[in-house]
Amino acid sequence: MHHLNLTRRELLSGAAAIGAATLAPQVPAQAAAPLVGTQAPGWYRYKVGSYEITAATDGKRSFKLPDTFVTNIKKDQVNEALVAAHMEKDMMTIPYTPIVINTGSKLIVMDTGVGEAAFTGSKGVAGQFHSNIKAAGIDRNAVDLVVISHFHGDHINGLLTPDNKLAFPNAEILVPSVEWKYFMDDAERARQNTQRMKEVFDNARRVFDALNRKVTQYDAGKEVAPGITSVATHGHTPGHVSYVVSSGSSSVYVQADVTNHPALFVRNPGWHAFFDQDPQMAETSRRKVYDMLATEKMMVQGFHYPFPSLAYIEKTGTGYREIPVPWNPVI
Amino acid sequence: MHHLNLTRRELLSGAAAIGAATLAPQVPAQAAAPLVGTQAPGWYRYKVGSYEITAATDGKRSFKLPDTFVTNIKKDQVNEALVAAHMEKDMMTIPYTPIVINTGSKLIVMDTGVGEAAFTGSKGVAGQFHSNIKAAGIDRNAVDLVVISHFHGDHINGLLTPDNKLAFPNAEILVPSVEWKYFMDDAERARQNTQRMKEVFDNARRVFDALNRKVTQYDAGKEVAPGITSVATHGHTPGHVSYVVSSGSSSVYVQADVTNHPALFVRNPGWHAFFDQDPQMAETSRRKVYDMLATEKMMVQGFHYPFPSLAYIEKTGTGYREIPVPWNPVI
Repeated sequence: MHHLNLTRRELLSGAAAIGAATLAPQVPAQAAAPLVGTQAPGWYRYKVGSYEITAATDGKRSFKLPDTFVTNIKKDQVNEALVAAHMEKDMMTIPYTPIVINTGSKLIVMDTGVGEAAFTGSKGVAGQFHSNIKAAGIDRNAVDLVVISHFHGDHINGLLTPDNKLAFPNAEILVPSVEWKYFMDDAERARQNTQRMKEVFDNARRVFDALNRKVTQYDAGKEVAPGITSVATHGHTPGHVSYVVSSGSSSVYVQADVTNHPALFVRNPGWHAFFDQDPQMAETSRRKVYDMLATEKMMVQGFHYPFPSLAYIEKTGTGYREIPVPWNPVI
Repeated sequence: MHHLNLTRRELLSGAAAIGAATLAPQVPAQAAAPLVGTQAPGWYRYKVGSYEITAATDGKRSFKLPDTFVTNIKKDQVNEALVAAHMEKDMMTIPYTPIVINTGSKLIVMDTGVGEAAFTGSKGVAGQFHSNIKAAGIDRNAVDLVVISHFHGDHINGLLTPDNKLAFPNAEILVPSVEWKYFMDDAERARQNTQRMKEVFDNARRVFDALNRKVTQYDAGKEVAPGITSVATHGHTPGHVSYVVSSGSSSVYVQADVTNHPALFVRNPGWHAFFDQDPQMAETSRRKVYDMLATEKMMVQGFHYPFPSLAYIEKTGTGYREIPVPWNPVI
């Protein structure tokens, strides 16, 4: 307050010297307003042709950067990339952004976030997808289809409510056939030699068992709904798929996990994320998709991009760069 | 719908071959949900030290690109820059984003947008600032200070409601002393030889007359509130100022109109915007500020940047590039 008083004195003397209009400051009577302390509901809406797409953040997960987060690159170099992207050194923050598409005839959820109760200790930080689509005026009961890209927990756990009920009770659940076959295969489960991979299998079974395994499988390459074509982008998981959503002359590429955080893996498509099950196949998929995105100037909706996770892609000397699509204050 | 049916048939036959869980599709009974058609309330909150900053979009203005929008560059080259930034050729879209700062002891509005009724025909597209801060939980009656950077309509018209009442009735209004002296000087008004500049003068007088010219002048370089120091960045207008907001070890530079749209004037700091009254002085201010932002790695809040208008600045071969700060889903 000292500085403010000083400044005001100076301002007043300056004003007197200028001799302009009357400048008696009004000193507000009321107490200072309290800090609000809450973030905006994280949803953003845009059109692709006649389709209405609502990107809704599920939140984020922050953790200490593991030594092997990028399996083929030294941690020091990863830290350099984080700092170059104005991110915190030795920390990794990964956002999650599922989307909802209204085609005019179908209301479609694409991936579902970690679920409101999935990560212990992250309540409110992750698991926001259900509350954010509600804030966006979308009723979970009105969802016709849920399309799943792959079976990692941040994409499927939001199929359930915290009490293990169906989060989208009237929706058909579409899953990639290769992914389903792999993760439901007991022999594959038995072959896993890491605790983490066993848990990925067990989590997928937990979620789909809660749905009584009532899902519809689809083959990558097929149209999963009018104008929404799936694309085989295997590697991140054995059956991982992404999508081209087209309406009229407009398209957006819904990439799911073709890359994890763009600051590392768009800038450096040859870097292998810890989560990529077949890193070489994932890199091949990634390079193919990103070459297409840059060449075609097609927008990409990136699940692990910062919200609202919608960008154009440019080639750079060493890889690619994402150019966020400007926020449109109207739709 | 043809494609969907075809795909479903194929999916079902595929599912049968795989022999996995039961796959009878649930056909939803309800009609398709209607398109929602509205955009999210455009506000975003972040902390600078203990200060809480709320960026709130006022909307945007779109217009056919004038031949002389960049006064020292050919229109073709401007169009090339627009297309390179994935923007529409021959069109210019300029967003507006004022902010609100709660220091814990003062609630401060910095610039005010075009006002809810200011631009005929743009209702809903621009003039959203008052409704967006309300959505953000901020009461206009609780605002202690309004700090104005310069006297263009998109920065001052929101001082008034559509019926010409005070939009922030309990706030002290702080204006730059050089700007006040210039725009309130009848001799300066008489010297203007373009209709546009006469209108800028007349609009400033209209707004401040509605406040009975009850303002407090401040000299650039002074602290206008605790931790908020004004910086003389003249050129865009004769008295234009910007601000450094500091709390604890954190700072953000609130640039007002040091640049107009970053895709043109951050990338090319030597380009002169039509709105810059003294283009050479504006360029000198711009280069000085941007060199500092890049060197100090200081965040910038840019009034004409795409919402939420918060970025880091990097040097490039020809100028600078803005790197949007990732949206934080929590605060």
